[in-house]
Order: sequence, then C-alpha cells, then structure tokens
Amino acid sequence: MTNKPWSLQQCCDAYAGAGVGGISVWRNVIEPVGVQAAAKIVRASGLKVPALVRGGFFPAIESIKRQNALDDNRRCIDEAAAIGAEMVVLVVGAVVGMALNEARKQVIEGLSKVIDYAEANKVKLAIEPLHPMYAPDRSCINRMKEARLACEAINSPWLGIACDVYHVWWDPDLEIEIEIAGQQKTLFGFHVCDWRPNTRDLLNDRGVMGEGAIDIKHIRACVERAGFAGLNEVEIFSAEQWATDQHDYLLRVLRAYEQHV
Amino acid sequence: MTNKPWSLQQCCDAYAGAGVGGISVWRNVIEPVGVQAAAKIVRASGLKVPALVRGGFFPAIESIKRQNALDDNRRCIDEAAAIGAEMVVLVVGAVVGMALNEARKQVIEGLSKVIDYAEANKVKLAIEPLHPMYAPDRSCINRMKEARLACEAINSPWLGIACDVYHVWWDPDLEIEIEIAGQQKTLFGFHVCDWRPNTRDLLNDRGVMGEGAIDIKHIRACVERAGFAGLNEVEIFSAEQWATDQHDYLLRVLRAYEQHV
Repeated sequence: MTNKPWSLQQCCDAYAGAGVGGISVWRNVIEPVGVQAAAKIVRASGLKVPALVRGGFFPAIESIKRQNALDDNRRCIDEAAAIGAEMVVLVVGAVVGMALNEARKQVIEGLSKVIDYAEANKVKLAIEPLHPMYAPDRSCINRMKEARLACEAINSPWLGIACDVYHVWWDPDLEIEIEIAGQQKTLFGFHVCDWRPNTRDLLNDRGVMGEGAIDIKHIRACVERAGFAGLNEVEIFSAEQWATDQHDYLLRVLRAYEQHV
Repeated sequence: MTNKPWSLQQCCDAYAGAGVGGISVWRNVIEPVGVQAAAKIVRASGLKVPALVRGGFFPAIESIKRQNALDDNRRCIDEAAAIGAEMVVLVVGAVVGMALNEARKQVIEGLSKVIDYAEANKVKLAIEPLHPMYAPDRSCINRMKEARLACEAINSPWLGIACDVYHVWWDPDLEIEIEIAGQQKTLFGFHVCDWRPNTRDLLNDRGVMGEGAIDIKHIRACVERAGFAGLNEVEIFSAEQWATDQHDYLLRVLRAYEQHV
C-alpha cells in the first residue's frame, strides 16, 4: 500500500532489488492477477510475507452480514496461506449506530468462529487497533488494551496484535500494553510511518518516518524489549507521495527508515 | 464558534431571541470590540456565560514561552471574570517533538502556577481532553483519565474538566471516568456535537447532533447521573455549516438539540 500506484509485480521487483526483506500484501493487488499468480510472484521474489491485509469487519446489524464476514475472513485466510503470509491483519470493523462495546462483543464472537480455521491453515490473525478517529465505521478496537482483551477472550496462540505506531502512538498506556503483549506472546506485527502535524486527510495523509510527531525509535525499542523479532513494516498511505515517482519515493522511504526507525 | 460568521452581538441577539440559555464566548469575538464592550453585550443579553474559550497551551521547549503562556492564561482569567464567565476552558497544549508525558508534566506545572489566580478571580479552569488526533500540537491530554490525573495532582475545587462528546465518545473508559468526575466534583462542562462518518477535515467538519456516530443521549445520561447540572453547550466547528444562512442554521441546531441530545 505504501507504493499504491505499483502492481504486486512492480512492488516485489523494486523491494527485492532494494534489499527490503519482505512485503505485506493488500488484497487489492491480488485481485487483478488472482491468488495463484500472486503467490508465484511473491515466491519468485524471495521476499518474506509477514501479512495479508486485510480481514475483519465482523460487526453488523444483520446476521446475514455477520455470516458473510465470516466467509470472507475464511477466504482471506485461504489467500494468506496461498501466498505464504504469516498472518492476516484484521481491521475488526464498527457500525455507525451500534455501541462500540456491542461491536467489540460481535468482534470476539466473529473471532471465535474463524480462529480454528486460521489454526488449521497455519495462518495467524492479528488485530490491528485503529486510531480513535476510525471508531465510527472501521474499528471498534482503538487501543492496544481492547486488542488484548479480545486476545484474552479467545486465548489462542493464533490470535495476536499488529501494533501500528500511527494508530497507537498517543496512548498513555502504550508502553505497558506492549510489555504485556510481549509477555502474552501476542505481538505479531509492528508497522511504522509518521503522523504529520496539520494532517490534511483522515485516511491518506500519513507521513514518512521523521516527518511528524511520533517517536518511532522509542516505540521500536519498546516492541524489541517486549521480544518482537519480526519484520518492521513501513505502511504509509499518502496521496501526496503516491503522486510522486515511486522509485524515488522508495529511496526516500529507505533513507527515512535508516534515520528515524 | 458554532455560528462563527456572527459577531458576539449577533450571537447574543440571536441566542437570546431563540430562548437559548447561555453562550460560551471565544476570545476571537472579544478581540474586535474589546473586553469591556464584550462584557456589556453579554450582560445586556441576559445570557448565562458558562465559559470563556480558551486558555491553556502550557508546554513549550523554551522557558520564556512557558512564562508567556502563564501570562496569557492570567489575562484569559481576567477576561473571563470581566464577562462573567463561570470558567475558562483549557486546551492544554502539546509540542511536536516533546514526549506527551513530558508535556503533561509541564501542563500540571503550568496549572499549579495559575490556579491561585483563578481562585482569586472566582473563575474555574476546565481541562478539555481533546481527541487523540490533536495530540501532536494541541493537547497532550486526550482522555478523561489524564484530565482526572491532572485534577488530582492540583487538587483544587477551581480545577475540573470540560467533557466534549466529540473528543471522548470513543473512549472505552468514558462512563467510569464521568462517574469518577462526578464524585470528585470536577465535571464543569458538557459540550455536544456529532462525529460525521467520513469526516473530511480534522478541524472544521464536526456534525450537527444526529448526523453522526455519537450516542449523545447516552453520554448526557451519564453526565447527569454523575450530577452535572450546568448548561449543555453546542459546539460545532463546521465549514459546511458556516457557509449557510446562520439564522436557518441556528434553527436546525435547535431542532437537532431537541431530537438528539
């Protein structure tokens, strides 16, 4: 998603060429080529695949929609297994007009119904807490703590947390929750970007590391102290950067990673 | 601020005419007329004045800036006393590059230096927790809990909290923190508006009550159960609504208040 203008093939070529260790794959780049072709592209690149992004969106007013979500999450797990992804990242969902605590109950119910399928396919599920500004309709889980409570409710080694600094950097309980996630062995993913002061758009105006307010090195130190040993994933949604030359941009991202992560 | 295109005089005339009980006054409408004239306008209207908005912005890297902030907060208290405002609402501040917990320390230090002046002038100070999306440079206090911790540190009946649904509606601890604020007698203000799904701007795209995701009636019930008996303040920053006829808009706001608050 960081290089959204590129196809999966272009991403894999560029990342492998630049010495990047892996790629997390969004479903929108699988769709144009199909999952088997996507799997071939990824395998041929030699890149590791921390995650397929994204499953989730469990809560719904109508039971048929909740059922559809379960089906879609199982398909997502299939795709993750096919492309060799270690985990599926979950944006758990929320519904305007539904209380967030009711939505969280439905998330846990949904997770309980797909976790066996995840285990059977050897694909982990990672709840990504989203920033509170996405609480209305994208995620009723907006802090590490509520992700932890969901993990504790399901209590499976196949369910954990993807910690994205963009979403959680402001949380006064971030450090302690990262520590607990380390103890509970639920720290599955770590995503970096930055929060631009004077953000112009709620979705597509993330900053390159170093451009903003987040002390990424500090949070990285916390996740490493908690035992995280996976790949650090750069995930930047930026209409501004997508409009630039993507090869130049990739070099800027790599330099920013060296300096600020 | 809800009717930003209007002067203080126009606001007071329209609100008094519409049977609104009070007005909280932003400093930007005082500036063009001066504080004495503003005080006359407000007194003549017969409206109550819950708050002068806004003081705060305590943290700074340079000590001279922190000193300037203290001076400005004392001027703000003077103005509040002059216009008969019950409280000054505080946006406490934050600084890009300063850790939020360091900023919160500086906020408490700043509060400790102005609280006697507030008491001497019989003006309350109300910390308004701001939404986490304002954490980089506007407020290092983003939940009711951190506002409570500041109040507990200062421990003065002149320091409390202004609870604005826009900022805190997503917080899983909202209900319990409102209850505690009631017990601690720190629930000084209650602000309503709505959170539009697909918010287009981080600052000026708040929704009219009923347009969005917030269960305002539920939060109102919480604050009333906690003993809040002040005026419910409508505070809507909306470029879209500011571009419409403000008399029509005021009628829409009043209707929305009846239905959704």
